Amino acid sequence: MTITSFIPPHRTLMGPGPSDIYPQVLQALSRPTIGHLDPLFIGMMDELKQLLQYAFQTKNPFTIAVSAPGSAGMEACFVNLVEPGDKVLVCRNGVFGERMRENVERCGGIAVVVDNEWGTPVSPDLVEQALQDNPDINIVAFVHAETSTGALSDAKTLAEIARKYDCLTIVDAVTSLGGVPLLVDEWQLDAVYSGSQKCLSCTPGLSPLTFSQKAIDKIQQRKTKVQSWFLDQSLVLGYWSGEGKRSYHHTAPVNSLYALHEALVLLHNEGLENAWQRHRNAHEELKAGLEKLGIQFVVEEASRLPQLNAVYIPDGVDDAEVRNELLQRYNLEIGAGLGALAGKAWRIGLMGYGARSENVALCLKALETTLK
Amino acid sequence: MTITSFIPPHRTLMGPGPSDIYPQVLQALSRPTIGHLDPLFIGMMDELKQLLQYAFQTKNPFTIAVSAPGSAGMEACFVNLVEPGDKVLVCRNGVFGERMRENVERCGGIAVVVDNEWGTPVSPDLVEQALQDNPDINIVAFVHAETSTGALSDAKTLAEIARKYDCLTIVDAVTSLGGVPLLVDEWQLDAVYSGSQKCLSCTPGLSPLTFSQKAIDKIQQRKTKVQSWFLDQSLVLGYWSGEGKRSYHHTAPVNSLYALHEALVLLHNEGLENAWQRHRNAHEELKAGLEKLGIQFVVEEASRLPQLNAVYIPDGVDDAEVRNELLQRYNLEIGAGLGALAGKAWRIGLMGYGARSENVALCLKALETTLK
Repeated sequence: MTITSFIPPHRTLMGPGPSDIYPQVLQALSRPTIGHLDPLFIGMMDELKQLLQYAFQTKNPFTIAVSAPGSAGMEACFVNLVEPGDKVLVCRNGVFGERMRENVERCGGIAVVVDNEWGTPVSPDLVEQALQDNPDINIVAFVHAETSTGALSDAKTLAEIARKYDCLTIVDAVTSLGGVPLLVDEWQLDAVYSGSQKCLSCTPGLSPLTFSQKAIDKIQQRKTKVQSWFLDQSLVLGYWSGEGKRSYHHTAPVNSLYALHEALVLLHNEGLENAWQRHRNAHEELKAGLEKLGIQFVVEEASRLPQLNAVYIPDGVDDAEVRNELLQRYNLEIGAGLGALAGKAWRIGLMGYGARSENVALCLKALETTLK
Repeated sequence: MTITSFIPPHRTLMGPGPSDIYPQVLQALSRPTIGHLDPLFIGMMDELKQLLQYAFQTKNPFTIAVSAPGSAGMEACFVNLVEPGDKVLVCRNGVFGERMRENVERCGGIAVVVDNEWGTPVSPDLVEQALQDNPDINIVAFVHAETSTGALSDAKTLAEIARKYDCLTIVDAVTSLGGVPLLVDEWQLDAVYSGSQKCLSCTPGLSPLTFSQKAIDKIQQRKTKVQSWFLDQSLVLGYWSGEGKRSYHHTAPVNSLYALHEALVLLHNEGLENAWQRHRNAHEELKAGLEKLGIQFVVEEASRLPQLNAVYIPDGVDDAEVRNELLQRYNLEIGAGLGALAGKAWRIGLMGYGARSENVALCLKALETTLK
């Protein structure tokens, strides 16, 4: 066996994530590892919590990063909030809504599914109807920004309806955090998870997570133990809590947390509103260029995510061949379609550091040349 | 809020992990992120699998790294192999055996616990007795190298006994992998997990994992779904498998996997036997020095881990004060006691890159000065 160091090329990442990583984040990642109970590291984690609270626009004391990717953040919400027998409304308009349903059932919960067509947002009317029909539902779960289709749902309205029926909300903000407005406190969302590798432009592997007091209350009233030891947030809190002595739960991913800290410092320095505007600007540039190429969006303008542009592959074009040409010739990655859109759509990400005119220009010119 | 980049100091890490990280691993960590479905990344993962097989001394096709810390690797073993009602023998001689018991119960399994005193290895006789008494047990779970006490158990013998009673084995090799002999195929271990941040001297956050064919068979014969979606290894395998097209499960922690690849290249270049010998040598040097200081080991010589030295805190010495002095004056971290040994012992790690004479010398001189 002769295996040597792996030296990756420099790609421009315009798929559904990982996004282009800030150079400063890669630098932060390689800083010297210190102990996960080192007082300086604990101080860094306190800052990280504040930075996450800013990104989520929340004052929730329970605001942390799960030591694993977004799917584990999703699972952390479900295993902590859903007890066997609990009835959960799951809104499904793409791959990640379906994954939520899987999570509910693996927790022993009962999933009531509201389906919306792929590429459309979750319909508040259908949600309200389902809650009227099922008064025993106590949680509503939905995806804010569907990474598989590029559709943005109206989290504020959905949460209002959920509250009207005395339900908690579980919200997938993997692709929305940092890219479009997400106001956890103002919208009164209860359990919200995200990913490090989308609009935060941090490396993949961590999942920002925040729980409202109502979510914490439900966890504290559980009759059964959380089925996952690793994701039992009442245990995790013993480590992340600022009060008194930190108790060991698992070894924190020290360097990955440096990277997330740095990405959030950059977001804070730029300002959330400026970051949202930058994503919109890049999207407008991309949209104008794609229209000239005759390429159509999957999602209607009103609910289109600026950071994740799902577009139909033009007729007669070989999906894999084009993506391969972009990768080989231009070191440019765009995303394939997922689930129902596999082979039918591409997903062009303009996330975080990737939401820049130079990325848009490269993508447009490379597509134009390749599609000729 | 004024929060700036976090610049950690350079510590010498001689606790129970994270260990001192190879400088080359930190370099690898900061290489450009590429997509987790990029053909070059898939090639890197194929190499990583081979390197992990070497480290584990196995030909198991199912040999991967879980995208989360060692505790998640532990949970991956239990949630995949234990079904509700399964009876599992759990050997408990420290913190991590107790965590195994928790895992069994959270999976709906029934844990039969064999207790051994903290600081002693698991007794093969007690295990055999328990298996005789409970013929319906089908899994034996034990910790190879107890990080909380520094005791090494005889994995080969324990696995022989388990096979005699037709049981699979789940083995915690978090602290043993790369530090002491661990021969997965020769000893016929079935489900073995480890951590990146101990004797591999990679950054924390990943958990190497290998399943034997017998373990895979048990998973394929499950009557119930694995309760964790994130840790369902039949789904994960769709991404890690070398056959045909990789299917998306979750976004791999790309840069962390670069780091693990690099750490394993370094281990392979050195050679496992040489690495084991280096750990023994460093331990002998440390032992000689500690004896001169009158410091006693917790574990008897025969089952003492070279890479994790649990020693009693001398009478009249303030635990926290000494560790704080070592950290502040020498930038040296040693570990506190855990569980039953909290406040009574220190844990001095000589793991991976940290198993070097210069680390031993620093630790001995710093302790000598501080204890005076």
